[in-house]
Amino acid sequence: MHDNPLTLPLSSLRSHQAIVVEQRDWFADDELRRALALAVAAGDKAQGTTSPNPPVGAAVVAVDGEIAGVGATQPVGGPHAEVMALRQAGAQAEGATMVVTLEPCAHTGRTGPCVDAIIDAGIARVLYCQKDPSALAAGGASALEQAGVETEYLGLAVKALEPWLYAQQCNRPYVVVKIAQTADGFVAAADGTSQWITGSAARQAGHRFRAQADAIMVGTGTVLADNPTLSARDAQGNELAKQPRPIVVGTRSIPTESMLWQRGVEQFSSPTKALEWLWDHGQRLVLVEGGPELITSMVQENLVDELHLYLAPLLLGAGKGSVGQLAGTLEHATRFYVEATEMVGQDVALVMRRAR
Amino acid sequence: MHDNPLTLPLSSLRSHQAIVVEQRDWFADDELRRALALAVAAGDKAQGTTSPNPPVGAAVVAVDGEIAGVGATQPVGGPHAEVMALRQAGAQAEGATMVVTLEPCAHTGRTGPCVDAIIDAGIARVLYCQKDPSALAAGGASALEQAGVETEYLGLAVKALEPWLYAQQCNRPYVVVKIAQTADGFVAAADGTSQWITGSAARQAGHRFRAQADAIMVGTGTVLADNPTLSARDAQGNELAKQPRPIVVGTRSIPTESMLWQRGVEQFSSPTKALEWLWDHGQRLVLVEGGPELITSMVQENLVDELHLYLAPLLLGAGKGSVGQLAGTLEHATRFYVEATEMVGQDVALVMRRAR
Repeated sequence: MHDNPLTLPLSSLRSHQAIVVEQRDWFADDELRRALALAVAAGDKAQGTTSPNPPVGAAVVAVDGEIAGVGATQPVGGPHAEVMALRQAGAQAEGATMVVTLEPCAHTGRTGPCVDAIIDAGIARVLYCQKDPSALAAGGASALEQAGVETEYLGLAVKALEPWLYAQQCNRPYVVVKIAQTADGFVAAADGTSQWITGSAARQAGHRFRAQADAIMVGTGTVLADNPTLSARDAQGNELAKQPRPIVVGTRSIPTESMLWQRGVEQFSSPTKALEWLWDHGQRLVLVEGGPELITSMVQENLVDELHLYLAPLLLGAGKGSVGQLAGTLEHATRFYVEATEMVGQDVALVMRRAR
Repeated sequence: MHDNPLTLPLSSLRSHQAIVVEQRDWFADDELRRALALAVAAGDKAQGTTSPNPPVGAAVVAVDGEIAGVGATQPVGGPHAEVMALRQAGAQAEGATMVVTLEPCAHTGRTGPCVDAIIDAGIARVLYCQKDPSALAAGGASALEQAGVETEYLGLAVKALEPWLYAQQCNRPYVVVKIAQTADGFVAAADGTSQWITGSAARQAGHRFRAQADAIMVGTGTVLADNPTLSARDAQGNELAKQPRPIVVGTRSIPTESMLWQRGVEQFSSPTKALEWLWDHGQRLVLVEGGPELITSMVQENLVDELHLYLAPLLLGAGKGSVGQLAGTLEHATRFYVEATEMVGQDVALVMRRAR
């Protein structure tokens, strides 16, 4: 993701932020920019491994300007990013500046509050990109200030945190729908053939994203038609280290011969029930891969936050659509906005977010 | 198109060419690179105004390294790019180098051969990007060599020339199909509403391309349903200086109240007949804007060279598709390759070319 975070500190941030950021005092400080880049990159790498906690990254800039420590949130029960960075910094944390992607937490959960660790380590100043909106963990910045630690809210969007932040607002997991279709909108030809509409590069990108998701959800129709494993695999077909939890939505039975049974599948009668259960079980990012009925009902219930559309440069003119009827008139179409477009092999990947 | 051709000499060329080009001797010469950029930019500006001639650009680098002249092909009957550049260069053409996007012509048509003008002006060296494949005008480079003018074939693809070059190979106009659709492939909702699927920026881009086309073609169904003017207009609705010739394909009558009658429309029973007539009338770039029946038959007859897909980040789930049935199975889908993707306002523009 970040081939060279040291030279491109803004690469993980939204492009429209760059101009504003360049006018800030801290941006003129090379070491702080470098620390920000390392913190963001560390958080990016932790994506998919931290739920129910957010994938935070932190870096410590020692008094002499050296980067003394970098850390990311560990899997649940393990230390948060701040503690990881402080451990690496050791005695160099005294009087140092910490740059962290999220406001340090002020509550004791499975681990102690990060603010205590920061104060105890003697950190003099904390710059944080995003405020923590969660009722339990918030208040970290004011706790730090009260203890005499200078804090600065940077107000920078950090992509790796956005699903988690949004999930906190909604009290349900962030939902990404993936669709691989032809340029004219078909996910299968009239005879049902669909392997492969997109090329191997797009399919591999899809598997990499599966590994970042906490859960992967499909409808019973997809289970019955395709008998999928829903695992995240590499180009050779080997399973990746991190696997999303398989979730099936629908009332039809999952056949006993389904591959999914080997992976401990959970079934729910509706997407809302599935999302509630996932939220309660600490899952914060859910990937939905079809079929059309499930996607349609989730769009209608306003449960789709992001759409990953892989578009192959093919025309079929007929076949199976990616979504069922949503609107009878243009005015009622479901609106997204395009966040990114990218060539992935021969195909085009469009990342769209729900317009609200 | 070229905000600063002097600093971005390769901006009009395909990106994959850049590495090869950087290894060439001439590329190390700042003045030749500058001349190439100016020649390419001049040709770009002439797009849509030169048929049946190609939109060529030329620049003259005087002995002292100064750019002494730049020119583009004038509308039919007017001078070609080389002559325009030579006129501007005047006496500075003596011993100079000419950079031109297409091999200079060796035949007398409405104007005399460019090679004679180049030889008469005393040009010492000609660098040209593309060879002229046309039976009549080819042979320019060897004619120049015989007259003692050094020539070098650069082998650089020039986007502005590609439709013309391809048309020469096929003996029919180059065909671009434009489709404005939702992300799930609909050009209208179930109730027929389609204004506007794409935003104003995409519609304006569409109008700018209309002005570059020699002709604009639709089926009778579109004429009956929409009563379009098919004119190229600016954001305020005013007609642009250059207008494409309206062509209707189909056997149903064009209603007497059709707006198209005011623009001198031609009607043909089939796309092939229309393209033949357009070719014979010197038209080299045709834009097809629908409807689905016409596009379908043109794709089936392998008459579509390029697809401009404007994709709005909307989901409808049902409605009118952009193309009729082309293939019943995935293997028979019509394949394109993506040449460019670009955000245009809120929408995504994909330029695809037919894979052959």
